[in-house]
Amino acid sequence: MLKKGLSMTLLSTMLIGAMLGTSPVSAETLEKDKEVKNVIFLIGDGMGPAYSTAYRYFKDDQSTVEMEDTGFDPYLVGMQSVYSADPYYDGKEEDEKENITDSAASATSMSSGVKTYNGAIAVDLEQKDTKTVLEVAKAKGKSTGLVATSEINHATPAAYASHEHSRKNYQEIADDYFDDLVNGEHKVDVLLGGGTDYFERKDRNLAQDFEKAGFQYVKTTDELLQANGEQILGLFAPIGLEKAIDRPKEQPSLEQMTTKAIEVLSKNKDGFFLMIEGSQIDWAGHDNDIVGAMSEMEDFEKAFNKAIEFAKKDQHTLVVATADHSTGGLSIGANDVGKWDADVIKAAKHTPDYMTRLIVENGEDIRTVLAENIDFDVTEEEVKSVQAAKDNASKEDLFTEVDNAIERIFDERSGTGWTTGGHTGVDVPVYAYGPSSEMFAGKIDNTDNAKNIFQILGASSSEGAKLADTATKYPAGIFGGFLVLATGGCLWFRKKTIQ
Amino acid sequence: MLKKGLSMTLLSTMLIGAMLGTSPVSAETLEKDKEVKNVIFLIGDGMGPAYSTAYRYFKDDQSTVEMEDTGFDPYLVGMQSVYSADPYYDGKEEDEKENITDSAASATSMSSGVKTYNGAIAVDLEQKDTKTVLEVAKAKGKSTGLVATSEINHATPAAYASHEHSRKNYQEIADDYFDDLVNGEHKVDVLLGGGTDYFERKDRNLAQDFEKAGFQYVKTTDELLQANGEQILGLFAPIGLEKAIDRPKEQPSLEQMTTKAIEVLSKNKDGFFLMIEGSQIDWAGHDNDIVGAMSEMEDFEKAFNKAIEFAKKDQHTLVVATADHSTGGLSIGANDVGKWDADVIKAAKHTPDYMTRLIVENGEDIRTVLAENIDFDVTEEEVKSVQAAKDNASKEDLFTEVDNAIERIFDERSGTGWTTGGHTGVDVPVYAYGPSSEMFAGKIDNTDNAKNIFQILGASSSEGAKLADTATKYPAGIFGGFLVLATGGCLWFRKKTIQ
Repeated sequence: MLKKGLSMTLLSTMLIGAMLGTSPVSAETLEKDKEVKNVIFLIGDGMGPAYSTAYRYFKDDQSTVEMEDTGFDPYLVGMQSVYSADPYYDGKEEDEKENITDSAASATSMSSGVKTYNGAIAVDLEQKDTKTVLEVAKAKGKSTGLVATSEINHATPAAYASHEHSRKNYQEIADDYFDDLVNGEHKVDVLLGGGTDYFERKDRNLAQDFEKAGFQYVKTTDELLQANGEQILGLFAPIGLEKAIDRPKEQPSLEQMTTKAIEVLSKNKDGFFLMIEGSQIDWAGHDNDIVGAMSEMEDFEKAFNKAIEFAKKDQHTLVVATADHSTGGLSIGANDVGKWDADVIKAAKHTPDYMTRLIVENGEDIRTVLAENIDFDVTEEEVKSVQAAKDNASKEDLFTEVDNAIERIFDERSGTGWTTGGHTGVDVPVYAYGPSSEMFAGKIDNTDNAKNIFQILGASSSEGAKLADTATKYPAGIFGGFLVLATGGCLWFRKKTIQ
Repeated sequence: MLKKGLSMTLLSTMLIGAMLGTSPVSAETLEKDKEVKNVIFLIGDGMGPAYSTAYRYFKDDQSTVEMEDTGFDPYLVGMQSVYSADPYYDGKEEDEKENITDSAASATSMSSGVKTYNGAIAVDLEQKDTKTVLEVAKAKGKSTGLVATSEINHATPAAYASHEHSRKNYQEIADDYFDDLVNGEHKVDVLLGGGTDYFERKDRNLAQDFEKAGFQYVKTTDELLQANGEQILGLFAPIGLEKAIDRPKEQPSLEQMTTKAIEVLSKNKDGFFLMIEGSQIDWAGHDNDIVGAMSEMEDFEKAFNKAIEFAKKDQHTLVVATADHSTGGLSIGANDVGKWDADVIKAAKHTPDYMTRLIVENGEDIRTVLAENIDFDVTEEEVKSVQAAKDNASKEDLFTEVDNAIERIFDERSGTGWTTGGHTGVDVPVYAYGPSSEMFAGKIDNTDNAKNIFQILGASSSEGAKLADTATKYPAGIFGGFLVLATGGCLWFRKKTIQ
């Protein structure tokens, strides 16, 4: 393909050579300058375009006409398609074909460069194990890390360091993290997230196994901040962490986990690969909870900012941030209103989930709970709507119905719309910074992330997905790039592996 | 700003100069190569990210695992924010503040580089006339054109060549097209769309005025195809054209109008500015009609392809395609389903609107109409749902209710979700090709379109919005670009006017 060919550095080098009629002596120096030592890959689970835009509205300084950019905006390079493979089977051939991806399939695409079925954890359509970018990084002598606000054995991190036919194999995924070795070593040096329930089991105490193998095991924010081991297992909740706005200080922020992970991993002079997931943007989306969603966006943005801060200092770190899919069919504006009122969302001191727990589990008074946790005057009608939900719900649906009623207060006042409790198929934004970030520009597919990172890691076809040898691409690229330049065509390009 | 600085051509030139220690002799040649003579600006009204992705699902060859790119995909360069100004007033100070844009405000941002209130037609927050890129192009001796599938005096085209406090001033907008002159000449050389009702009025026959002034006036596809004038007014319907899937052959496709407009305008050796609107993607969105939306996307894609085809041959044409906002809160997947089934949509031979007309206006039998216009077996339950809608509706709501019932058949079978009959605030994709297309890359704001085009046209601050003189930007840019290159930072850039 001529239209998507080359990095600017390479093009410049070629140009010099072409115009001088000599071999470009400085090419090696330039190539060295853009060498990628570290890769930080951030996934905002469920962070479709409506989320990143809503977050800009949410953070807007309303005293100015201009809507200020978020931390992500300056790094937008394009969008990616995220569909999962169709036909699909979730271990059962008779399942209906799906083409809207789940987190497992999309994470597998991003970790391994293949399209697969919903539920697949780093296995392809034939359920064969795929090689992941984390595994290849480890094999190349780099340190590796997985950070999430879900249980650390949830689908997205799992697809980087385990291989299972189903995302539901939670225990097996946790076991894989310890048992699957790369060159005799544990795959992941830093594991931070939730999930003590899966690691401190009766049948097997994985946390202890990790400790015996030399990992430092930490369980609170303080312990994390003080940790100084080269390998760390940090589990801060039985399953997922609390949402950022509800999170007790014993549970770290994504920013704190990110900072520690970078601190530990960057000690390796051969570099590192680190995947960081803002896991619960998606969970808030499934719940149709705009308060939780914005709070999780903020948690994720702060982690992203830390990654960028490190990359700007380091100069040999590639940072990519994107989403695996969008969730909930979120819309900024609903029911014919012309305004999305973020003030309504900012008025919440906790998520509707948190308030519902107080009402349903602690038996607290609805009016009091709403008054104490929301910074606007809840109307009599709104109190009654929650009361009615509580009174009319079956025991089974009690929590959900009360939660939904509180969420509706925020939705209706803010003008927030939802269409589903599941995922949607819309393309998601891609942000990138650092050397080789141009490879992620334009419209890419989620599989391109792995393909690009394999190429950056210098993985051969036997190591990664089917990869073209990078060296064979340049001659055609040089010709194509020069042609386009000469004709004044598109003025930027991205390296692309042959598909 | 250093991080967003320069085109690749310029950077290469600098590099050569820097490394040889000489002044780059070839700089002028390179600059000439990337000179923009023509600008084709395409607006898919309402074409938010869910539309462009849905259209990829819609066109997918399902016999392959890969989902093929649409005509737009290879040209994606980023996304733009589209919010309108808050506070806003639609001519009435007491109106509620809005921050989700309408077509008028967003088109004014794209035509004039200012944020304004919903309803504004090329006037700013103080309701003062703004200068538009079309007017500046005309003043520079270029030919100009407006093409739309709505009435040609609808908000989007209007914001390029008229100035009104309200988009509702339809007659005044049409009058502006004739009465407002640039250097004594009519502003727009080619006007193609709908709107005979506004141009052949009892109080004033504008069509005749245009003819007397030398414009060729055409009213059918055949007349359009045979037209050979240098200035053309083509009006093919009383108000808007029919949606593409329902359009009679007497009404041209957007592709046919685009082809003719380019043919006529490209005769000017000084170049042209042409705005082309896929107007009714938005109308289908307001109606929550996925059949109409996909049909209009196809109409728009074919026009885009024609623009790209011309630009590739011409080599001095910049093509930009984007949207003014998204509409309807469309989601690909709804109600917890994991599949979006485009086959359901492809089964429609006409829009639900068209079928409703047969039922409500012609009194045809529901079962027969559905059977004849849909290529799947409509169930008894579905027939009954339309019948019930017809039976239960008030006379006033009859059309809407029947239409909604038919739309629901497609929504439920395909897994399509909607949240509003209005607009939503989500960022929209930006596609660009040709010289200076790098200026539109990354995350931009809708106002940046005008700012960039003013700069390309060499407009000074008195002509366009407040513009920096382009010449003063290069020295800082050269230094910045070189610095980033040397440090292996971000490898592409975009020229950006100082804000």
